Amino acid sequence: MPHFSLNAIQQLEHLYKINLINSCSGFKSANLIGTKSAKGKSNVAIFSSVTHIGSDPALFGFFLRPTTVIRNTYDNIKETGFFTINHIHEAIVDDAHHTSAKYDSNVSEFDVTALEEDYRNDFYAPFVKNSPVQMAMNYVEEYPIQANGTILLIGAIKDLYIEDELLEQDGFVNLSKANVVSINGLDGYLIPKFKTRLQYQRPKKIVQSNM
Amino acid sequence: MPHFSLNAIQQLEHLYKINLINSCSGFKSANLIGTKSAKGKSNVAIFSSVTHIGSDPALFGFFLRPTTVIRNTYDNIKETGFFTINHIHEAIVDDAHHTSAKYDSNVSEFDVTALEEDYRNDFYAPFVKNSPVQMAMNYVEEYPIQANGTILLIGAIKDLYIEDELLEQDGFVNLSKANVVSINGLDGYLIPKFKTRLQYQRPKKIVQSNM
Repeated sequence: MPHFSLNAIQQLEHLYKINLINSCSGFKSANLIGTKSAKGKSNVAIFSSVTHIGSDPALFGFFLRPTTVIRNTYDNIKETGFFTINHIHEAIVDDAHHTSAKYDSNVSEFDVTALEEDYRNDFYAPFVKNSPVQMAMNYVEEYPIQANGTILLIGAIKDLYIEDELLEQDGFVNLSKANVVSINGLDGYLIPKFKTRLQYQRPKKIVQSNM
Repeated sequence: MPHFSLNAIQQLEHLYKINLINSCSGFKSANLIGTKSAKGKSNVAIFSSVTHIGSDPALFGFFLRPTTVIRNTYDNIKETGFFTINHIHEAIVDDAHHTSAKYDSNVSEFDVTALEEDYRNDFYAPFVKNSPVQMAMNYVEEYPIQANGTILLIGAIKDLYIEDELLEQDGFVNLSKANVVSINGLDGYLIPKFKTRLQYQRPKKIVQSNM
């Protein structure tokens, strides 16, 4: 079993290191975050760190890179308070991945890909048309991470739209029915196949031994 | 397309709401976090929120529920400073899921499941035997999330062990080769099938119109 110590990891070549470490959190969510600047320029960018933080209130968070890089998504959210989260499905993987290219803020990724912006219920930020799960999000708070200068940004669901056939009777949203993708590392895309749902677990009765 | 407003979400029945909102961040990572109390009682628990925060230094974070519930994982990490992250693969899904049952701190989940604890290089916390990706983690810092009382806990990789055949030439770890699973919502398990890796993206040349 290959073993990398901390020291060995630190000495790896840059690209090898980021491929390796990005793979080791497990499978990642694949989302497009839609924003619009105060001046009205739309933006859409791929994120693999959107994480469920709580259901009541309904909160999601994601991590942004340090302020030393171009961050249109962050700037637009800070200017307006609004963003959208849109699940990436198989049909739009290539265009979704292309949004990782570093465009200046005067270019909308909607203009250089086949992704189409969509507006609903007067929400300021653009949704991604035909995405099977789409959420209008309000900015809530952020945490600068001291260990590496990234930012955890947290938003609350304002509106949630789900493709009809995904929604099951008990509220479970079966993402595999829409071929929603998952990300492995920096650039690997996978189609998760539904296997099972398991029941709520209670402790087993433990037989106390007198030995 | 079904639509849930914030107001509608707030009025949903509890189980429906947590099924729904937990499904909407996209596919989640599936990890077992191994810990041991200062008194030497081991613990292993399933988490679906482990997220890559950075590669240099190599940092991962996960979210813990508020202090109002039993949190052996958190208490053990705070007592000792150590934990392990172990990827869940198809063969151990049932036992991994069972670790979500609320056992008292005097019961080790290793004793009530077929999961086996494993120790390496004198690291204090237990690994999960045969997990295809295993990491020894040092506690780094934590952030109490004001919006809902959860805690973001951040750790740094001390040692990384990867099953041989997963590691590719450029550092990419092909998790699908080990049937690593992904989680949908609270209780859905999926097997992601590898589709493609896409290239590093640079901006397309934009033709400026004089119109």
